[in-house]
Amino acid sequence: MSSTLGKNLEISIFGESHGDAIGVVISGLPSGEVVDKDIINRYLKKRATGKDKTMTARVEADEVQFLSGVYNGYTTGTPLAMVIYNGDQRSKDYSNIATTARPSHADYSGFVRYKGFNDIRGGGHFSGRLTTPMVMAGSLCYGILKNKGIDICANIFEIGGVKGERLGNRLNKTTFDSLREKSIQAIANEDKMREEILTARENLDSVGGRIECVVTGIKAGVGSPIFDGVENNIAKAIFGIPAIKGIEFGEESELRGSVYNDVLQIKDGKVKTATNHDGGINGGITNGMPIVFAVKVKPTPSISRPQNTIDFKQMKETEIKIVGRHDPCVVARAVPCVECMTAIAVLDMVMESKIYE
Amino acid sequence: MSSTLGKNLEISIFGESHGDAIGVVISGLPSGEVVDKDIINRYLKKRATGKDKTMTARVEADEVQFLSGVYNGYTTGTPLAMVIYNGDQRSKDYSNIATTARPSHADYSGFVRYKGFNDIRGGGHFSGRLTTPMVMAGSLCYGILKNKGIDICANIFEIGGVKGERLGNRLNKTTFDSLREKSIQAIANEDKMREEILTARENLDSVGGRIECVVTGIKAGVGSPIFDGVENNIAKAIFGIPAIKGIEFGEESELRGSVYNDVLQIKDGKVKTATNHDGGINGGITNGMPIVFAVKVKPTPSISRPQNTIDFKQMKETEIKIVGRHDPCVVARAVPCVECMTAIAVLDMVMESKIYE
Amino acid sequence: MSSTLGKNLEISIFGESHGDAIGVVISGLPSGEVVDKDIINRYLKKRATGKDKTMTARVEADEVQFLSGVYNGYTTGTPLAMVIYNGDQRSKDYSNIATTARPSHADYSGFVRYKGFNDIRGGGHFSGRLTTPMVMAGSLCYGILKNKGIDICANIFEIGGVKGERLGNRLNKTTFDSLREKSIQAIANEDKMREEILTARENLDSVGGRIECVVTGIKAGVGSPIFDGVENNIAKAIFGIPAIKGIEFGEESELRGSVYNDVLQIKDGKVKTATNHDGGINGGITNGMPIVFAVKVKPTPSISRPQNTIDFKQMKETEIKIVGRHDPCVVARAVPCVECMTAIAVLDMVMESKIYE
Amino acid sequence: MSSTLGKNLEISIFGESHGDAIGVVISGLPSGEVVDKDIINRYLKKRATGKDKTMTARVEADEVQFLSGVYNGYTTGTPLAMVIYNGDQRSKDYSNIATTARPSHADYSGFVRYKGFNDIRGGGHFSGRLTTPMVMAGSLCYGILKNKGIDICANIFEIGGVKGERLGNRLNKTTFDSLREKSIQAIANEDKMREEILTARENLDSVGGRIECVVTGIKAGVGSPIFDGVENNIAKAIFGIPAIKGIEFGEESELRGSVYNDVLQIKDGKVKTATNHDGGINGGITNGMPIVFAVKVKPTPSISRPQNTIDFKQMKETEIKIVGRHDPCVVARAVPCVECMTAIAVLDMVMESKIYE
Repeated sequence: MSSTLGKNLEISIFGESHGDAIGVVISGLPSGEVVDKDIINRYLKKRATGKDKTMTARVEADEVQFLSGVYNGYTTGTPLAMVIYNGDQRSKDYSNIATTARPSHADYSGFVRYKGFNDIRGGGHFSGRLTTPMVMAGSLCYGILKNKGIDICANIFEIGGVKGERLGNRLNKTTFDSLREKSIQAIANEDKMREEILTARENLDSVGGRIECVVTGIKAGVGSPIFDGVENNIAKAIFGIPAIKGIEFGEESELRGSVYNDVLQIKDGKVKTATNHDGGINGGITNGMPIVFAVKVKPTPSISRPQNTIDFKQMKETEIKIVGRHDPCVVARAVPCVECMTAIAVLDMVMESKIYE
Repeated sequence: MSSTLGKNLEISIFGESHGDAIGVVISGLPSGEVVDKDIINRYLKKRATGKDKTMTARVEADEVQFLSGVYNGYTTGTPLAMVIYNGDQRSKDYSNIATTARPSHADYSGFVRYKGFNDIRGGGHFSGRLTTPMVMAGSLCYGILKNKGIDICANIFEIGGVKGERLGNRLNKTTFDSLREKSIQAIANEDKMREEILTARENLDSVGGRIECVVTGIKAGVGSPIFDGVENNIAKAIFGIPAIKGIEFGEESELRGSVYNDVLQIKDGKVKTATNHDGGINGGITNGMPIVFAVKVKPTPSISRPQNTIDFKQMKETEIKIVGRHDPCVVARAVPCVECMTAIAVLDMVMESKIYE
Repeated sequence: MSSTLGKNLEISIFGESHGDAIGVVISGLPSGEVVDKDIINRYLKKRATGKDKTMTARVEADEVQFLSGVYNGYTTGTPLAMVIYNGDQRSKDYSNIATTARPSHADYSGFVRYKGFNDIRGGGHFSGRLTTPMVMAGSLCYGILKNKGIDICANIFEIGGVKGERLGNRLNKTTFDSLREKSIQAIANEDKMREEILTARENLDSVGGRIECVVTGIKAGVGSPIFDGVENNIAKAIFGIPAIKGIEFGEESELRGSVYNDVLQIKDGKVKTATNHDGGINGGITNGMPIVFAVKVKPTPSISRPQNTIDFKQMKETEIKIVGRHDPCVVARAVPCVECMTAIAVLDMVMESKIYE
Repeated sequence: MSSTLGKNLEISIFGESHGDAIGVVISGLPSGEVVDKDIINRYLKKRATGKDKTMTARVEADEVQFLSGVYNGYTTGTPLAMVIYNGDQRSKDYSNIATTARPSHADYSGFVRYKGFNDIRGGGHFSGRLTTPMVMAGSLCYGILKNKGIDICANIFEIGGVKGERLGNRLNKTTFDSLREKSIQAIANEDKMREEILTARENLDSVGGRIECVVTGIKAGVGSPIFDGVENNIAKAIFGIPAIKGIEFGEESELRGSVYNDVLQIKDGKVKTATNHDGGINGGITNGMPIVFAVKVKPTPSISRPQNTIDFKQMKETEIKIVGRHDPCVVARAVPCVECMTAIAVLDMVMESKIYE
């Protein structure tokens, strides 16, 4: 179903960029979990724009209203609904391009899919704005996971060809906390990455990048083989984020088996692997090591240069110059989205695992 | 649900490597579609082993029995069940390692998940053998898609560091037909790839690789935004194949937006894009260009060298030497699996699209 | 998933009786369908209370806000969210009974299910108030079905032992229109039914009843065998209405096969059956005759008499006197709920049938 | 999806009356549960025919083959597949009526649904034969529930107008055991019921009836509100049985609230209700009392009298005389089906409840 996800925990996302409100309903939450609004607000702020020159000037004063599912600060276990009313809507920025397809956007494919009835203002339901309800739902799930000893942290390791570093063994609270302070959440080279973004902006261009995400504190035995594995479920969730085009679990690629294989060890009475090339997952099931994966973010399709395109109603070729506000790079803003969508997928699977304990 | 997949077309896979039979039930098939047994047998043969020295000597004489859902050569529309009885079972090859985890296999994670009750012989339900029912179901779906003008073809473009080529614009029947004749289905450099595999075998080692897969003839407007997009659904299906650890849609990665963006054109009255960096998908929905994606196959975890590991029942460190038959590289055998799982995901979405036409 | 329903059309209901708002998100709607707000308001009014002495004095000024999914009066095809902010909330009416179980209510079962964290004010998520989002979603679906020539109408044929009549062959617009005008939507004996309700009220008691519901204009071939049949799907939807305890398809019960069997005929070139004891469904699939079923509504559990019960926190027996506002009979108010939940289930199946045409 | 059911426990049923085999795949079973083949065989025997004159002479020597999912007598937790090869197939009995609709059968509706491609021999996928895989899967689930202290037993309380008795308070092992010994599983009046069936047979006619089913030993707190309640899930499962046309939870119908309401008590430190008119369910959730519901079985549509009907290919009216073997009453054979489908639905919900504990 288009904008719903999950098995034990089902989220249903709604809204359009320039509609009245965006929001999400989460069904199936466990009851009695603390709803940590500080975490939610911190995540929403991280996702929002206007903080520095690498991002668009659009200010989104996102304040969440909880409509149901929270009582005395705890989840009730019945559906939890959150909305944010859209404030700063500048529809006219986009009105002149309603039938002209922005290249590498969903304008044309969406037009065909919805026979021209979808709300096209600001990208409508396809807008990056819709990552806000993902963050609303996911940060709430993250708060619940944190209380169970599970942490999730992302790290940008490439922007526009500027390489940073993978986290490797640095999977600890200190590293995560210092990462979270950064506006470009990268363990290394964030200054060069910022420069690259600013250069792209000056050139009326945009850049993409790569983010890795790790999940620590997750026990072995979570997930199921074949189609309900950790990879399947995280991938299905992560591809809900508009600009993500790739996902890869584990770290290295051209290794031979003798080097790639994660040999098992017993450390302090616990099963560990010497390396973690499989990203904590074997046969779709966690092995007790951190889950590690990386995603590819494509360059922002909205650029200020004139581009060739078509008017898909008149079916003729034309040119487009996108004058609205847009980021030259969405990688930094994708970080909270990746963490939050991971939180939703992981909480769902952790709940599932209780059935089999 | 662990071994079921799909919305309009639901497949339920069952079996263990050394059990009585493996098979699949497909619910929701359209009625009146030709069941092309030649295609199914061709695919099964391609997936099977024993053809040359790059693969294991195990001979799998796989003959499909249709138990239901086919009548006079056409799909009935009611559930279609297929089974293959397991013949050549050499349980003793594996019996001595029942409680010793093969590194980078699901032995340990599966043991925790199933509390030691899963059938561990030959990997049980986690075995590569379970890709057979995927191929059974997927090749049947492929036959149906082909009659609708949709074609699917994969191309190996890297094995063990030996690079081949991406297909690029060579997306035509002639190329596909010549590719399908090859035992290493690569458009270029298959001889060097074969050498690399044989070298790995000699070194008691294994190698992985990369496969791209393309879907041609698919119209615009298939798929839905956010969580039911083409990327989400193909990724969820593809990660059902045991050795796949990554998927990436489209082709290039470090391009800037001005180069990456697929500008739209009108050619012979039809909408096309000048490039296809988005792999035929915008906002989760097809744009009429071929779907293009690449997957990463990890090196075969079974290698003949001694490896450090643990006995997970006795919780002590030990060593393992895997003596059973195993491929030094499963990339070539993954090709039909990738094509077939893609066929299942695509047919499901094409059926879905009829609702919205 | 607890408060979500549907396959092609997925509704996710949220809210609590005394929370900030109630609402529903509908995913998967076809695009380009007229959103008929008059129909929605007419249905909400019918569901609301305070109209005559047979119902509670509580006035619900229900005004729907559309948050997404509607553009220029048409469905966009992306998720449609509707909310109603709760106004007239008298929490104190219920506060004194928070840990005392109202007999035949969900107070105790809900307490166990949610470990005491559910919002218990006014019944919380279990309240009859939650039928409002059902009516919001269902009346919108009804409007869409109506434009496709499908009509749905319910008829009360028993209240508190007072029998009315089944519709039988009177399945036409004139009958339906006149039925819809009535506050007790019964084709016969509504005055005696009203008397029975008032008598129950005077006796500080309550009564239940039976409603039949018919769907006309639905073509043959909708639905699927075994678990995805018309009966399965309507039943699953209808049991979402709190007070419904039974459902029966078709009309008569103790007939022999020779009388029960609906013999087929050809009338004006169309297939009909001489009788409709099967309620328009064979093998889970519509046969072209109207769908006919009846539901049983239990007597309102809230009565003003003192009742024995327990305090489930203190685990001791006690007595309860429910002082809040409550209807002596909810059968009349269940009528729009039954029609609306039927509309949701039917639209979902009609959409599904397009896949197989 | 047409022939699949369940959330945590997914069953996928396949087969046609005169096809090669029928069977079922169960995904999501807990691992380490005993597979009690005696229970399965006892249930299959009970469902089979040929035992006395009230049933058809067709002998079904049903022997289950386990293809996967069982290892050393325990469930592995991975998909469990069972098949029965069809032996005694007399296709010619039905061949002459292939395009003539048997009244109140799915011949015509199925023809439209599947555009004439479904296997029509013996009713194909619509045949009562397909209740065998239901019994295979359900009896396995029943065995698992029994080991958890949950019992399920059905009781016929009406056949062809001949009334028996409801079980009322007689919900104990002794009653259940003695009931299970009977070929007509009724606590009272089974001789008169048998006579009624034989009379129907003599008159070339058929009769229906009513069965109640109880689930004992189920704890409070199982199920979820609104659409995932116990009523919704049991109803969805039960309507999978071909001849079932109605279901009603609890016992009485025309009671007033003051009598109907199940007042809560504490007995031996446990919560009980004085009566059980709600059938053990409040707000979709178990309250700790036995689940009680009744189903209506329609009269067997196959009767030996000539009946008016149509040829739906030639679209002309004609007559039919069904000469195959058929039961004058399927109520007794529906008993194991009702118990087994209940077991599937209940086990699924019991598994679900572990998430929320």
